[in-house]
Amino acid sequence: MPGHKQKQIPNLLNQQPLADFKVGVDNVIFSVDTAQNRLLVLLIMRQQEPFLNQWSLPGTLVRQGESLEDAAYRIMSEKIKVNNLYLEQLYTFGGPNRDPREAIDSFGVRYLSVSYFALVRFEEAELIADKVTGIAWYPVKQVPQLAFDHNEVLAYGHRRLRNKLEYSPVAFEVLPETFTLNDLYQLYTTVLGDNFADYSNFRARLLKLGFLSDTGIKISRGAGRPASLYKFDAEAFAPFKDKPLVFI
Amino acid sequence: MPGHKQKQIPNLLNQQPLADFKVGVDNVIFSVDTAQNRLLVLLIMRQQEPFLNQWSLPGTLVRQGESLEDAAYRIMSEKIKVNNLYLEQLYTFGGPNRDPREAIDSFGVRYLSVSYFALVRFEEAELIADKVTGIAWYPVKQVPQLAFDHNEVLAYGHRRLRNKLEYSPVAFEVLPETFTLNDLYQLYTTVLGDNFADYSNFRARLLKLGFLSDTGIKISRGAGRPASLYKFDAEAFAPFKDKPLVFI
Repeated sequence: MPGHKQKQIPNLLNQQPLADFKVGVDNVIFSVDTAQNRLLVLLIMRQQEPFLNQWSLPGTLVRQGESLEDAAYRIMSEKIKVNNLYLEQLYTFGGPNRDPREAIDSFGVRYLSVSYFALVRFEEAELIADKVTGIAWYPVKQVPQLAFDHNEVLAYGHRRLRNKLEYSPVAFEVLPETFTLNDLYQLYTTVLGDNFADYSNFRARLLKLGFLSDTGIKISRGAGRPASLYKFDAEAFAPFKDKPLVFI
Repeated sequence: MPGHKQKQIPNLLNQQPLADFKVGVDNVIFSVDTAQNRLLVLLIMRQQEPFLNQWSLPGTLVRQGESLEDAAYRIMSEKIKVNNLYLEQLYTFGGPNRDPREAIDSFGVRYLSVSYFALVRFEEAELIADKVTGIAWYPVKQVPQLAFDHNEVLAYGHRRLRNKLEYSPVAFEVLPETFTLNDLYQLYTTVLGDNFADYSNFRARLLKLGFLSDTGIKISRGAGRPASLYKFDAEAFAPFKDKPLVFI
């Protein structure tokens, strides 16, 4: 039916043979150093070509019989020791020519990357330096040129992290069990950037949500007057778990 | 460092050779029949093994030189004619044994599926029935057992659609340019299910957001009193575009 023709997608591709792929997983693991108010990302120095000695996200290629998730957890278990690491899928990058190995030694094999995302508590995460030339919690603001398209993957992960902070109680998985409202504000500012909201609006908004319970304890830090310590009240939050909600 | 050992991921996998993949794209295309208040998904009857003659999401395998997005748009351009089709990536399904072809004729090659998502305006979308044995806007509530793991992909797409309705003004891309508040409520009910909110709360919430402008025109439908026709005010919404916000 010629009347049904629409914007032509190059039809030549229909005659092309199917592409062959190797599939990699790359993990964007964030942490927040709440003492120094810095957002950190876990980077590994590559020990093989391509991009020998360049920083990269921790990743691996998927092996026979292995699921994508298993591969993502496998590489993490070699790099970091943490309680309850929870990875969620981020995005799949799969354009042609994203990996130089496609050209050199692969007979046309393409490399696709499925990225995963996690946020871990800085104090609990222990890096494993076995058999690597470099592993680091890199401040996101100072990340250098990374291997492959990993700067793009990292940027995507950073957007996901911002969204999660805005729409979910993920902040409380990063903070210590008790915290001041200023600690919470600093965490949001560290991830979202300055001026996302002023402190008094933020404070009013968070208290109004009703998920913070005052422990009754006050602490003094530096010169200011003592501040109340709060806890996240998971029970009060439970009925809202599946409801749309903004946290700031 | 033995002290660093953690939950053992089966290390045997480290000795396994890398898996070889073909990569498919599968599209979850939703539409809403606003006249009948039904949420629809585009399905294709398969014309080849495996799953010959079963309904499936429209998909294809990625060819040499083709990006994932290009493959997703290529298959859509063969199935549907619509203005400004915008596909966004949904999720990647890649476990072993998700595709029966892995066993039969593939010498261990695995099939990974990158899914894409779109919502199109029912009145504008024209199905292209060239060279297919079946193509249909299937009511989501009546979808049968689909080929491969496509029921799971569809369920994932449905969750994304709900989220988008809750957190973004996507509803106004589906409704006609002018609509009554009841039309809007029906659309939300169709996607989110009954009882997501009562009508008067919904109405108050939407008007308070300030993104709806009253056209001054009233229409009568059926027995009720005339209802005002509204438009989505994109200009009023613009400053909120990147702010966290809930729509219901």
